[in-house]
Amino acid sequence: MLGAAEPKATARGQAPTLKKAEGGGHSQGLGPWCRQKTGAGSQTITCRAAIAWETNSLAIEEVQVAPPKAGEVRIKLKSTGICGTDDHALKGLFPMHFPFIPGHEGAGIVESIGTGVSSVKPGDKVLTLAIPQCRECNSCLHLKGNFCEKQDVLPCSGLLMDGTSRFTCQGKKIYHSFRTSTFTEYTVVPEFAVAKIDDAAPMDKICLISCVVPTGYWAAVHSAKVTPGSICVVFGLGGIGSAIVMGCKASGVTDCLNPRNLKKPVQQVIKEMTVVGVDFAFEAIGLPDTMLAAWDSCNLSYGVCLIVGVAPQNTKLCLEAEMIISGRTMKGVCLGDYKTRDCVPQLVTCYLQNKINIDLLATHQLPFDQIHKAFELYHAGKV
Amino acid sequence: MLGAAEPKATARGQAPTLKKAEGGGHSQGLGPWCRQKTGAGSQTITCRAAIAWETNSLAIEEVQVAPPKAGEVRIKLKSTGICGTDDHALKGLFPMHFPFIPGHEGAGIVESIGTGVSSVKPGDKVLTLAIPQCRECNSCLHLKGNFCEKQDVLPCSGLLMDGTSRFTCQGKKIYHSFRTSTFTEYTVVPEFAVAKIDDAAPMDKICLISCVVPTGYWAAVHSAKVTPGSICVVFGLGGIGSAIVMGCKASGVTDCLNPRNLKKPVQQVIKEMTVVGVDFAFEAIGLPDTMLAAWDSCNLSYGVCLIVGVAPQNTKLCLEAEMIISGRTMKGVCLGDYKTRDCVPQLVTCYLQNKINIDLLATHQLPFDQIHKAFELYHAGKV
Ligand SMILES: NC(=O)c1ccc[n+]([C@@H]2O[C@H](COP(=O)([O-])OP(=O)(O)OC[C@H]3O[C@@H](n4cnc5c(N)ncnc54)[C@H](O)[C@@H]3O)[C@@H](O)[C@H]2O)c1
Ligand SMILES: NC(=O)c1ccc[n+]([C@@H]2O[C@H](COP(=O)([O-])OP(=O)(O)OC[C@H]3O[C@@H](n4cnc5c(N)ncnc54)[C@H](O)[C@@H]3O)[C@@H](O)[C@H]2O)c1
Ligand SMILES: [Zn+2]
Ligand SMILES: [Zn+2]
Ligand SMILES: [Zn+2]
Ligand SMILES: [Zn+2]
Repeated sequence: MLGAAEPKATARGQAPTLKKAEGGGHSQGLGPWCRQKTGAGSQTITCRAAIAWETNSLAIEEVQVAPPKAGEVRIKLKSTGICGTDDHALKGLFPMHFPFIPGHEGAGIVESIGTGVSSVKPGDKVLTLAIPQCRECNSCLHLKGNFCEKQDVLPCSGLLMDGTSRFTCQGKKIYHSFRTSTFTEYTVVPEFAVAKIDDAAPMDKICLISCVVPTGYWAAVHSAKVTPGSICVVFGLGGIGSAIVMGCKASGVTDCLNPRNLKKPVQQVIKEMTVVGVDFAFEAIGLPDTMLAAWDSCNLSYGVCLIVGVAPQNTKLCLEAEMIISGRTMKGVCLGDYKTRDCVPQLVTCYLQNKINIDLLATHQLPFDQIHKAFELYHAGKV
Repeated sequence: MLGAAEPKATARGQAPTLKKAEGGGHSQGLGPWCRQKTGAGSQTITCRAAIAWETNSLAIEEVQVAPPKAGEVRIKLKSTGICGTDDHALKGLFPMHFPFIPGHEGAGIVESIGTGVSSVKPGDKVLTLAIPQCRECNSCLHLKGNFCEKQDVLPCSGLLMDGTSRFTCQGKKIYHSFRTSTFTEYTVVPEFAVAKIDDAAPMDKICLISCVVPTGYWAAVHSAKVTPGSICVVFGLGGIGSAIVMGCKASGVTDCLNPRNLKKPVQQVIKEMTVVGVDFAFEAIGLPDTMLAAWDSCNLSYGVCLIVGVAPQNTKLCLEAEMIISGRTMKGVCLGDYKTRDCVPQLVTCYLQNKINIDLLATHQLPFDQIHKAFELYHAGKV
């Protein structure tokens, strides 16, 4: 988790600068470097961002962030999480457009808004949403839909709704990632990808409630509806897997299986331990092999396999076809099947009321310019 | 559907004969050929049965049916359905043991019972259950389980619980299919695979409520919980597909799509017609290709794909892995996820109360010795 909190930015003497630009919108000053308190927000901001120029590379650069156009919001980021999806994107496992600014789990404060934006105003505390909620598309209007058609994860255009980018660096167009891009001090995001949260929310850890916490926690408590006493197995104990375990425990599950250093295929060990297979298997890694292991760990009749990990493009999950009819369920889950803009703020409120504890998931908090260090810790499995 | 009703059997002068045998049990006479009204039921019955000596062959033969052992029930069959699963078995798409007596959708009357049998007595009207309910195994004891561990479909041993067969023909051991074997005038079935039904049930069409009706109807109304106004697509409009359509209509669905003679892949046509994909897709054929088409016809977020068809052994259903997390559900369904022995009799009662109409599914009723004719009609798609 990276913090771009003002004191640090200020201490490093790297306050972003403002430049005049063409776009419209309203801005409000939020730090010593903000030259205007109200008004058109029509200025380009120069600030620091981490750019992936190519796969597996990340460089901190000075970027220009154009003002928000109609229906867009410019956000001054206060903290951002690092999610497995960002790692996949950097590794080129997704069809990303390079160069881009990674990151989607952002907590920040609205700096300015484009025309027509009504759900947030400058100064509001917000989270960014990789799976947005436009409230207009078929999926948003459907009782059970949450994979908003305006999402830009699968596939990923790297551009905002008008087909352009708000970022430039050294005169070059820089792509967005998932219409969020949070590894930057300022970003521009469509209004439908912004969740206004409680004014009392602390801006450091709360970025985790933008994605990792709801993705894992809700997968257990809402998508799977894990029942007390049921047997659960979680493949992949990173951020999301840990949040799944939290959700399972909150649902009355008491045991956790940690299958390390196994000599046999994990699904075989699980079948031997449970005899009948598990009630719920969660895949939170993003590999077809572990997805298959999760499926094959399930009880043949009532087992439910929840796929939370995002697999690399052009890979297949191949199931033994004959055995499907015995009754198992496989379900893909994104953000716990909840409508994000409606529900993410409620989870923030739960956190403020101490109904959910996310502190265990926030292992490290580093200033923004230590993003390389953050990825080192991430890859060393220390987060 | 084949009827083995007494008048026909009598008219054809082929009443089964009784022979003394070793086994225990109680029998009750049910026709002019039953030599004893009460007592040990310890006799082997000689009657007619259709035997699959090898793949794609079916011959009507005289067979010996041993008396029921402990926990078993001997049934005089009154009618039997022909199900896609029987066709798969005959074609060798399942790991069957040859020679065997096919059929699992039987309606009959208990002729005799082995020791320890308490849920049925001679004279009771019953249906046979390919997916049984032993009420003891993990699946039966689990709130949501219905794929009883004593099922003998996947895999199929072809034998009763003690590892032996009750059928012989020309001195050779004949295997059971799915512990039911209904293409015979008499069969022996474990008690847990026998559902006692209402005394008022008509014995001709009711065999359809042993498998095809609940498999299809319940898949829609219980497993999928189809909601009024939702868009459904059914792949395969045989017996089960038609019962699925009945269930969809009973759930408030008004339109049916009949994708015949298409120039493009059916999932593409469905996406074009619905724009967003369907709410519920049912596969009732049993082929990986149509399973994939059903999955790909579903709405990416809230679509639910129900796999009802049984695929051939050693085939794979390969899904594009990356796109799974958008939210779709895939669920295998056998007998609508209901516990069969508890619920099949209730469906018979619904039929007697005119709450469900199965008459459209009973296209032909033929005497038992016209089983070849029945398969001809089946393969010509006239049923
Ligand atoms: N469905 C959604 O809405 C959603 C949202 C965000 C992220 N994701 C996906 O969830 C997955 C996990 O994300 P994360 O943020 O927790 O990532 P993470 O990197 O923090 O966690 C992944 C964990 O899996 C472990 N792992 C890797 N290979 C393994 C293997 N072969 N066997 C066992 N463990 C293995 C790693 O050690 C790590 O602990 C990613 O695929 C990510 O793209 C999905
Ligand atoms: N899940 C369960 O509990 C359960 C129970 C019984 C049967 N089944 C399975 O359900 C399936 C259907 O059984 P049924 O009794 O209805 O069989 P059926 O033969 O009556 O119906 C199958 C239908 O599919 C059609 N069909 C075949 N290939 C097709 C294709 N490529 N595209 C479109 N249509 C095609 C046929 O014309 C036929 O109308 C079988 O696989 C059977 O084994 C499952
Ligand atoms: Zn994330
Ligand atoms: Zn939407
Ligand atoms: Zn059947
Ligand atoms: Zn059982």
